Amino acid sequence: MTGTITVAGLGPGDEALVTPQVRQALDRATDVVGYIPYVARVAARPGLTLHPSDNRVELDRANHALTMAAEGRQVVIVSSGDPGVFAMASALFEALEAWQGPPPQIAILPGITAMLAAAARAGAPLGHDFCAINLSDNLKPWDLVEHRLRLAAQADFAMAFYNPRSASRPHQFARVLEILRQECGPDRLITFARAVTTPDEHLLTMTLAEATPEMADMRTVVLVGNAATRRVGDWVYTPRRAG
Amino acid sequence: MTGTITVAGLGPGDEALVTPQVRQALDRATDVVGYIPYVARVAARPGLTLHPSDNRVELDRANHALTMAAEGRQVVIVSSGDPGVFAMASALFEALEAWQGPPPQIAILPGITAMLAAAARAGAPLGHDFCAINLSDNLKPWDLVEHRLRLAAQADFAMAFYNPRSASRPHQFARVLEILRQECGPDRLITFARAVTTPDEHLLTMTLAEATPEMADMRTVVLVGNAATRRVGDWVYTPRRAG
Repeated sequence: MTGTITVAGLGPGDEALVTPQVRQALDRATDVVGYIPYVARVAARPGLTLHPSDNRVELDRANHALTMAAEGRQVVIVSSGDPGVFAMASALFEALEAWQGPPPQIAILPGITAMLAAAARAGAPLGHDFCAINLSDNLKPWDLVEHRLRLAAQADFAMAFYNPRSASRPHQFARVLEILRQECGPDRLITFARAVTTPDEHLLTMTLAEATPEMADMRTVVLVGNAATRRVGDWVYTPRRAG
Repeated sequence: MTGTITVAGLGPGDEALVTPQVRQALDRATDVVGYIPYVARVAARPGLTLHPSDNRVELDRANHALTMAAEGRQVVIVSSGDPGVFAMASALFEALEAWQGPPPQIAILPGITAMLAAAARAGAPLGHDFCAINLSDNLKPWDLVEHRLRLAAQADFAMAFYNPRSASRPHQFARVLEILRQECGPDRLITFARAVTTPDEHLLTMTLAEATPEMADMRTVVLVGNAATRRVGDWVYTPRRAG
């Protein structure tokens, strides 16, 4: 049997947000690889081998998937959210570029990415043009993050930030807030959306003036409105109209 | 019974991409409102009234939903893709802002938005920081579109364009391609993804030098890579690493 690799997005946490397409791929898999907490979301069954691995070993995991597919296995790589947004799809193609064997059959299955789940819980803060920025400097220089932030603010994009803050770089998110206050002013709305759609979900919206760095951690997606973003009742939304 | 409004994303077209959460909301609805082709995706059943409406009447539709919810109905507003991305969620909150009655219970249910479905079919072109821009000038001045495009290119975002081209403004997308060639150079990769996940699906990737305006229509999402976006086999991907 020809081996396959399917990169599947599990969505932000709630099982009711896993698409039937992803569910079907998991039902057909012989092997599931991924970061430990994501593999833990896949039910064990006879004929399925689970291969949980640690964080920051994305290329090793992709190569493991390529090796198993070459052996004729039906491999699913699981990501949380959408696999194409700061997740495993790019890592697989990076590994494929260096892969010496024949390429396996590959499919990427989209999922509900964290920023859109967070936006839905908050209202519609991304209802006009917006951007998504990974604030981790693991894979890019910090100067580039600052440069992008300023240009995004000058373009008046609404913004979504992934990986806003980790224990190893707590000062960087403070710097992000400082830049945003300079570029967008103190009254701009910001939403901290933690562990969206899970039992730990917590949303908090305020102005940039009121925001402090410790409001974000690695389970938080941060949404910043554009100049027109406002509240209606308990909701936050960005009007469709601009300029 | 208290009325409710649920704004639900149906995804890009394939029924296997409709989340169980959205399916359940549709099963419980007494009324479904939305643009004609989206309401056509909802199966008729006893106890459910379908209210299809024309395009560009988003506020009328939102007010209709508010009126029915005030009468105790369980209303679902359907959007294609994700309701928070250039769709009905913002329109509902705009209508709610002007609404005189008591506010109904509201829920926004995310869906697979077109750019992420298109990216998955192409590979992982949005695998690094990216932005989403609605190229229609119905709701914003064209100058703002051009300004945003240039800043997005200077920030080296990968880009997704919704509503790239309509019969009423065919020249504007030609101008977009011209600006992109100026800012990103002729070799930058661009993907035209039409009617993704439907029987009419058609994907085409090329360089900006090779792209022509008529490759896009209103059923197309256009994806533009960043400076590092490249091909591997038949796939297009943006590496996670930058700078």
